[in-house]
Amino acid sequence: MTAPRGFVAAGVHCGLKAEKLDLAIIASTAAEPATVAGVFTRNQVQAAPVLYCREVAASGRARAIVANSGNANACTGESGLADTWAMAACAGAALEIDSEHVLVASTGVIGVPLPMPTVLAGIDQAAAELGADGGERAAEAILTTDTRTKIEAETVELAGGEVTIGGVAKGAGMMAPDMATTLAFVTTDAAVAPAALDQALRRAVEPTFNSITVDGDTSTNDSILVLANGAAGVEAASAKDLERFTDALERLMGRLAVALVADGEGANRVIEIRVGGARTNAAARQVATTIANSPLVKTAYRTGQPNWGRVMGAIGRSGVDIVEQRIAIAVSTPEERVEVVRGGLGVTEDLEPLGRAMLAAHSVLHVDLGLGSGGWTVWTCDLSEGYIQINASYIS
Amino acid sequence: MTAPRGFVAAGVHCGLKAEKLDLAIIASTAAEPATVAGVFTRNQVQAAPVLYCREVAASGRARAIVANSGNANACTGESGLADTWAMAACAGAALEIDSEHVLVASTGVIGVPLPMPTVLAGIDQAAAELGADGGERAAEAILTTDTRTKIEAETVELAGGEVTIGGVAKGAGMMAPDMATTLAFVTTDAAVAPAALDQALRRAVEPTFNSITVDGDTSTNDSILVLANGAAGVEAASAKDLERFTDALERLMGRLAVALVADGEGANRVIEIRVGGARTNAAARQVATTIANSPLVKTAYRTGQPNWGRVMGAIGRSGVDIVEQRIAIAVSTPEERVEVVRGGLGVTEDLEPLGRAMLAAHSVLHVDLGLGSGGWTVWTCDLSEGYIQINASYIS
Repeated sequence: MTAPRGFVAAGVHCGLKAEKLDLAIIASTAAEPATVAGVFTRNQVQAAPVLYCREVAASGRARAIVANSGNANACTGESGLADTWAMAACAGAALEIDSEHVLVASTGVIGVPLPMPTVLAGIDQAAAELGADGGERAAEAILTTDTRTKIEAETVELAGGEVTIGGVAKGAGMMAPDMATTLAFVTTDAAVAPAALDQALRRAVEPTFNSITVDGDTSTNDSILVLANGAAGVEAASAKDLERFTDALERLMGRLAVALVADGEGANRVIEIRVGGARTNAAARQVATTIANSPLVKTAYRTGQPNWGRVMGAIGRSGVDIVEQRIAIAVSTPEERVEVVRGGLGVTEDLEPLGRAMLAAHSVLHVDLGLGSGGWTVWTCDLSEGYIQINASYIS
Repeated sequence: MTAPRGFVAAGVHCGLKAEKLDLAIIASTAAEPATVAGVFTRNQVQAAPVLYCREVAASGRARAIVANSGNANACTGESGLADTWAMAACAGAALEIDSEHVLVASTGVIGVPLPMPTVLAGIDQAAAELGADGGERAAEAILTTDTRTKIEAETVELAGGEVTIGGVAKGAGMMAPDMATTLAFVTTDAAVAPAALDQALRRAVEPTFNSITVDGDTSTNDSILVLANGAAGVEAASAKDLERFTDALERLMGRLAVALVADGEGANRVIEIRVGGARTNAAARQVATTIANSPLVKTAYRTGQPNWGRVMGAIGRSGVDIVEQRIAIAVSTPEERVEVVRGGLGVTEDLEPLGRAMLAAHSVLHVDLGLGSGGWTVWTCDLSEGYIQINASYIS
């Protein structure tokens, strides 16, 4: 996320985790505060940094993000809020900026107070290490059960010139399509007004972060924050430029979101569920989400069990009115397309090609409800023993 | 289910499965047809025997149930319906009863045509083996991934004398609280009018079979059938007798339902989730169901991870309005009660007693929302590697 001009970052190990990097700062170096937009978890149990960031995001202006992993600062009450304020104050002092312009994000175990001396020392250290080359370490410092960093960049040509958008995100469990899943930070050197940035983010989040699921469990800390510092000297203000900018933001967030699914807890593969032929987009989304959260469907993809009855079962219980006899199902990979169900009935008794296609690193499950023109796509991953092992041993 | 007078049963191996028993008949020997009531899956994709049984149940009279495992006869279209009719006709001929009085149930793989010669031969064999001692074998013949049979009996004293209720059920995956989960057959020698039997069943199913979940996936074949043959010569007709009868039915179905959870796919323990202090019973049920279907909560119980933040997260995303600061959580076993959360905050940093209590064979998770007097209880099991292994290899 230091690809856009005028952003620096750092990631350090302060001691919230045993060995790994656990504290990050991302900051704009522009003279004026960047504009900011944020979307946050819809879970009614909300972590202190989420409550705090809502206010900063509402102000429309910020200069930096400080984020820690290893502790969510959730279910920590008034003292948790005070700790978030202290993190912002510490970062403000270290960066010599107004602490009201510091966003705070936390992820990790719920219900445990932050060890503040450790965190504050980490903030000082990270502030001292900020640089244009710190993006990779910052991306690493926000990970929890993720096995790799997720970093993306996108450039887009506006009327006034080229602007760049950069982003990082972390998963890897407690992920579901009900708002900004987990943490993601996006930076851009475009100049975008607060209201326009907010609108762009809200449009881009629906088909991306709000359309992925690992386990259907939403977190108390989900946040996506976007900072636009204008360092490119190019403004996204006209309707056409905002459209281009939002499209680019959506492409970037889409890649980050699919990267989160690919690195979902215990995941071996990405399953892209494209539901079409629904009466409305909302109905298609509901069917796709039900399939994507079905433990039976997800487990079938673990080993390529060609068990399409589980998909039919999930469609039937989605709560959307369907006509069994109109359902068509197919699975495709870059190499082949396998027709599975037509008119609600199995196309063939030879299920070997279906099983093979299900084992692709990224396969598409096509569901046609045959009722209308509504459609939606949701991404998920398989459910494996790895998910159990991670969550039976990890305090998250 | 041969405990009530006037019922015989048999279970045989006909060849739908490699080695295990796979076809059962349960029949009333009373001179007159028994009254019948049934509740069926709300999944919109419904198996042929479900479509068929709805009609028989609506008629209010039946004499026998023929059931097979190893094949669900679902997503099989018109020919699947014809196969169900053929099963009823075959059983009717073998038992020398009207085929309209034969109920049919199937469970197993979806989308594969029934091998009818095999099935019909099995029906003839089972009809020849019917006896008062056939209950255990019939219970065995309906199992799929279950590891043991579920058989319960209950007696209740009515004004006219004692009546007996017997029941069998099978799980063990594709189970969720959205109607009669999986298959259950209940017999009674009480005389109960069709409408009263239907009412009793519908009341008894809500806090029992509709309050358990293994994986949130409802099946295309879920059916509970109750036959009342009056062989005890005792009528349940007065309001008081019907109340007693329904209470007994509910107790029996409750034990069967919890037995299904205890034998859920890969299950090591039963988790009873009692939500109280809700504004309504429906709100309590929604919170309890969300917790019960949370993969993160269920996986924590796999190894006794004292990770109460996952319970808070599930409460917060249940869709029910809550006040985080009023939530209290405790866990109890027959031996101890561990207070976990009070006022939305952790009670103690010593989580070892919580972890220990979570490992009990049957522990209760108490959630008090602090908002009203609504309550509901849902039973589930832990999510383990066993669930993945069973469903990654079993075609169901």
